[in-house]
Amino acid sequence: MPSSKGYAAFDSKSPLAPHTFNRREPGPSEIAIEILYCGVCHSDLHMTRNEWGNAVYPMVPGHEIVGRVTAAGKSVTKFRVGDLAAVGVIVDSCRHCEPCNRGEEHFCIEGSTLTYAAKDRVDGSITMGGYSSNYIVDERFAHTIPANLDPAAVAPLLCAGITTYSPLRHWNAGPGKKVGIVGLGGLGHMGLKFAHSFGAHTVQLTTSLKKKDDALKLGADEVIVSTDAAEMKKHAGTFDFILDTASAPHALDPYLSLLKQDGTITLVGLPEKPPSINMFALITKRASIAGSMIGGMPETQEMLDYCGRNGIVSEIEVIPIQQINEAYERMLKQDVKYRFVIDMSSLR
Amino acid sequence: MPSSKGYAAFDSKSPLAPHTFNRREPGPSEIAIEILYCGVCHSDLHMTRNEWGNAVYPMVPGHEIVGRVTAAGKSVTKFRVGDLAAVGVIVDSCRHCEPCNRGEEHFCIEGSTLTYAAKDRVDGSITMGGYSSNYIVDERFAHTIPANLDPAAVAPLLCAGITTYSPLRHWNAGPGKKVGIVGLGGLGHMGLKFAHSFGAHTVQLTTSLKKKDDALKLGADEVIVSTDAAEMKKHAGTFDFILDTASAPHALDPYLSLLKQDGTITLVGLPEKPPSINMFALITKRASIAGSMIGGMPETQEMLDYCGRNGIVSEIEVIPIQQINEAYERMLKQDVKYRFVIDMSSLR
Repeated sequence: MPSSKGYAAFDSKSPLAPHTFNRREPGPSEIAIEILYCGVCHSDLHMTRNEWGNAVYPMVPGHEIVGRVTAAGKSVTKFRVGDLAAVGVIVDSCRHCEPCNRGEEHFCIEGSTLTYAAKDRVDGSITMGGYSSNYIVDERFAHTIPANLDPAAVAPLLCAGITTYSPLRHWNAGPGKKVGIVGLGGLGHMGLKFAHSFGAHTVQLTTSLKKKDDALKLGADEVIVSTDAAEMKKHAGTFDFILDTASAPHALDPYLSLLKQDGTITLVGLPEKPPSINMFALITKRASIAGSMIGGMPETQEMLDYCGRNGIVSEIEVIPIQQINEAYERMLKQDVKYRFVIDMSSLR
Repeated sequence: MPSSKGYAAFDSKSPLAPHTFNRREPGPSEIAIEILYCGVCHSDLHMTRNEWGNAVYPMVPGHEIVGRVTAAGKSVTKFRVGDLAAVGVIVDSCRHCEPCNRGEEHFCIEGSTLTYAAKDRVDGSITMGGYSSNYIVDERFAHTIPANLDPAAVAPLLCAGITTYSPLRHWNAGPGKKVGIVGLGGLGHMGLKFAHSFGAHTVQLTTSLKKKDDALKLGADEVIVSTDAAEMKKHAGTFDFILDTASAPHALDPYLSLLKQDGTITLVGLPEKPPSINMFALITKRASIAGSMIGGMPETQEMLDYCGRNGIVSEIEVIPIQQINEAYERMLKQDVKYRFVIDMSSLR
């Protein structure tokens, strides 16, 4: 059994600390990956601190994984030893339901297997994530990486990237559309890059004037400070689509007022408190509030290939694993531009 | 100036009482209608009691109007004196914005003119509704009525009918779709009839087992008592679309759990308290919560013509105007199957 070194949470309160554990041998359709980089997602913090109430300890978080293939089962066709490979938020699913057959494994009827803190479908163990030296995964749930992209800056694409790419595609962000992005963090800055790249008139909605210059640099055609009532009123009823990436509890009403007839606001963050809806705003415009999460395996590969063709990666700050607890505290203060990525060579 | 007799609310507390007022002479594109029947909508009660905070007194409510044309301006082409005509929730709009040009006058950017308690665009007066002897309206905002339908039972189509027809069409209720109807009142029973008629597998969702037989008679393929947890669980994740017609405050979560991937629940009632949303349910299924209200003038005519071809009308209880205050009290107790319609000959 391959041994793995990583950092784990041992309870909801203590800092993450070193942890050694075993992974299974890769099966015929599986690959073993030596992890090079792992992005730090806000959900890692929610999960390790048991803020969603489903923690299992010890928990090795991490689901934005980029690594190098060190072994490939005999039926593997997509990878050879030495190739780069990426793994995101899910690592398995039932593989036979309708959504799985459509390549929408994230909507698996029986439930997909999360990259960490979930029951492994193969051996019943608890999955251990990417804050570690290696990973074993079926090739269906691993992706190839365009050679022209910085592997460290690719890591966040596996969650922050696909989580914003997928809804922007689903709701047809593109030329002729006015698209708003709420929040300018790990997810928001990727949403901004994608919406701009898709050709939409892209507007950053932010509570902080400080972020204006950054948003413009990252691809915003306009920036609206959402606390400026006059500015918000000027744009009322003009947005086709708003992607809301804010994870802190926040009022939706100001954003609903921005939507035009048949407009949609899609939330990809999971606030701890459910928002209340001003139904009047929805009814009078036939507007919608929707949710979206990550994407299926084919769409995740499509997103990575798109990023390769268009030179899109995440803005990152690379840290050694030893700084992970400090990184969590900084993340809570939004003190990161825009995603921490752990250089896993620091484990050695 | 044509004089009109009607029943009005004079404040938010007192019962409705007789009221006499004047209407303007019909202009070149307008018709005068002698009102035969007017449906009693729950919003009449909200409005007269100022529960939405926008009352103007004296207020003559009523926006489900069926009558006979008594005069037609010289440019009127759709009606002749003696024809039946119907008027619904709106009686004017700017007529030049994009939605108006598309025939979606209910989404008029400048705001459509409501049939009562709104500022008339022609003479600046306050519009007086259909609990009265006559109405003056531009022919664009009046509809022809199929000759084979009972005019009294047509009246509720002008609000309850179009309010349910439009979203069921917009979200493609039809063959191969499983569609739920929440609530079995004035709106709900029309939603049930339409969804069934469109060929959807139509399921009545009700809190009351008592309504089961009626729902089956009205077109439900199945009835689910939403307080039966086992029953609800059996149907979890199976609905393409749910039309929520309940106007009392109610939890949306049980209905969200019924939606399948990419499913939508659309609210057409306006609860006094905004519902809070379980975003997790939306995110994990890419589901949507939407709102919808009435429909444009072409779609309202389309709905009436569809009802003519398919023999669809509202289930009604006809009352004289003198019983309107009692009818409001009974409506609050849901003691009506399924819409009160005032026989306006009782005014004379």
